[in-house]
Amino acid sequence: MSFKPISEIGEFGLIERVSAIAAPSLKNAPGLMEGIGDDCAVYRTGGPALQVATTDLLVEHVHFDLLTTPMHHLGSKSISVNVSDVCAMNAEPRYALVSIAVPRKVPVEMVEELYRGMVHAASRYGLAIAGGDTSSSPSGLTISVTMIGETAEHRLTLRKGAMPGDLVCVTGTLGGSTAGLKVLLRERATMIEQLRNNEPYNKDVMAELQEYTGAIRHHLLPEARLDTIRFFRDNDIVPTSMIDISDGLTSDIGHICRRSGVGALIEEGRIPVLPEARSIAEEFQEDALSWALSGGEDYQLLFTVPKGLYDDIAANRDISIIGRITEPEEGLLLTDIYGMTIDLADSGKGFDHFTP
Amino acid sequence: MSFKPISEIGEFGLIERVSAIAAPSLKNAPGLMEGIGDDCAVYRTGGPALQVATTDLLVEHVHFDLLTTPMHHLGSKSISVNVSDVCAMNAEPRYALVSIAVPRKVPVEMVEELYRGMVHAASRYGLAIAGGDTSSSPSGLTISVTMIGETAEHRLTLRKGAMPGDLVCVTGTLGGSTAGLKVLLRERATMIEQLRNNEPYNKDVMAELQEYTGAIRHHLLPEARLDTIRFFRDNDIVPTSMIDISDGLTSDIGHICRRSGVGALIEEGRIPVLPEARSIAEEFQEDALSWALSGGEDYQLLFTVPKGLYDDIAANRDISIIGRITEPEEGLLLTDIYGMTIDLADSGKGFDHFTP
Repeated sequence: MSFKPISEIGEFGLIERVSAIAAPSLKNAPGLMEGIGDDCAVYRTGGPALQVATTDLLVEHVHFDLLTTPMHHLGSKSISVNVSDVCAMNAEPRYALVSIAVPRKVPVEMVEELYRGMVHAASRYGLAIAGGDTSSSPSGLTISVTMIGETAEHRLTLRKGAMPGDLVCVTGTLGGSTAGLKVLLRERATMIEQLRNNEPYNKDVMAELQEYTGAIRHHLLPEARLDTIRFFRDNDIVPTSMIDISDGLTSDIGHICRRSGVGALIEEGRIPVLPEARSIAEEFQEDALSWALSGGEDYQLLFTVPKGLYDDIAANRDISIIGRITEPEEGLLLTDIYGMTIDLADSGKGFDHFTP
Repeated sequence: MSFKPISEIGEFGLIERVSAIAAPSLKNAPGLMEGIGDDCAVYRTGGPALQVATTDLLVEHVHFDLLTTPMHHLGSKSISVNVSDVCAMNAEPRYALVSIAVPRKVPVEMVEELYRGMVHAASRYGLAIAGGDTSSSPSGLTISVTMIGETAEHRLTLRKGAMPGDLVCVTGTLGGSTAGLKVLLRERATMIEQLRNNEPYNKDVMAELQEYTGAIRHHLLPEARLDTIRFFRDNDIVPTSMIDISDGLTSDIGHICRRSGVGALIEEGRIPVLPEARSIAEEFQEDALSWALSGGEDYQLLFTVPKGLYDDIAANRDISIIGRITEPEEGLLLTDIYGMTIDLADSGKGFDHFTP
């Protein structure tokens, strides 16, 4: 028997394998409507609303670096990324369970600040932190949040359901999280360099960060688009499919296409790249569009609606219509601003934790 | 501002502090019946049954050691410890969400074996593994499981509710998990010694482990007492209070007493110590009773019932009546086999992850 390191099959490969192993257990739960494979599991409890549940891990040195991440922000983000998954089902969050594994030497005050950030976010989203677990950790902080939400059955929106002709829409702007991360990583390198040379930390560097505040905020303090879910509810809109952009636009529209059995044509010129991300990309001599396409962690909602809803959607200035759903054989295409067509299925697959 | 390391206040101190911070968020959820402070959170969804939810972290080098823990067993245990929390509410498990953070170099086959263990346990308990998350880990395996269950409202059992005069009961046997752990730790030391001396691993040692199989099984493969929950249901028994023994009998009866505002008198001679734990304790020149009282991880159910139910409980040969609930001013006492009374409130507090 030969052994294969996870890095060889990557995160999606691993998820595929463990999902296949877990699949037989799904028949144990007749109330389950959706298992692994969407942003949340969905199940009935006999009440008027469907329940949705999701869970996300945040691991130090993988998802965050304490040198550049204030604990309050980290707490808030750990709640927001889970609320974002609940929103992706067109549901509203209700309860969070929070577990942390934390090194023994970490000051209590840091953990308290982390929880204050969580509670701050919880109150903004109107949810309760209803339980959890604590453990020591031999190395590094790990945060695990589970979020339970609910939605009326007719409002439930899955990744599956997009139809040819539907409009492809995205909330807010993209690329901001990656831009902020780039700035923070550069700042981190400077800090480490100064520490190595025993220089006092130069506060001027911090002051210079102010011009990047917007992008950094997109990275450290993403907001789940619960406002969009409420806009849908108030305007009687039910998207035909939806996902939150955690891996990057390319990867996430890919999930919708695969699960719905359709293709998509995205227009580059319509992708709402954060203007500040463009100027930061220029400074780094990188491409803001590719940050928007495959940087991930923007936590905007990507969804499809029948084209008859064009006016209703266009009325919301915070939603961009970036393309349309096509027949499956047309594949996943991007038309660039010169009219050239690029096959997105060949390009970046979004962020993968296991491939270096 | 002075900073206090977590090790100074311990796990219970930390839980107290973060619970106080999280408390204001509870008012965001009018459907919530129990938040932090019981084995599960409890909430209404408008359906006929109450929902319960719990989450547990298993961290390598804190909760398990891969040298002595087969992945299949670890998977099963990670499900069982959460089912045990659901049972402690007199509820039945329905859905599990499983997250793992795993080092990149770990073979895929090991992760698959872990999930096979989880699915095996899930099928035995009749629950579905309905979702989760995967991440790489810079060091060590972390498993986070969230379990959602349900119970009829009149069957819900909390830590709070024990009344003076109630019988204190415990399922199965205690001390087995600690006994198994002691044997495994000794085995591990031998293995490491052999590795250090470049000796080939001596299989005779493994063969000698066979006489300890029972205790090792209690440690590596604890079973949640869903059978007891079904016994309650089939016999129309609703305990007045319940908890699962994860920290040790002393600590866990303490939780019931504090939450219920009562005292308890436990009779040492009635505590069902696993016979094999007694012989292992003798070998280690330790005290099996103290393993039962404060070793933890036995995952038996500790509960109270009105004394009128004596016959119904005594009919179940797998349940021991170990004492009775008293007035709060009588405190938490243990009568030993010589009739001496010991104040348990002064003794061991059970396992604490943060105090060395």
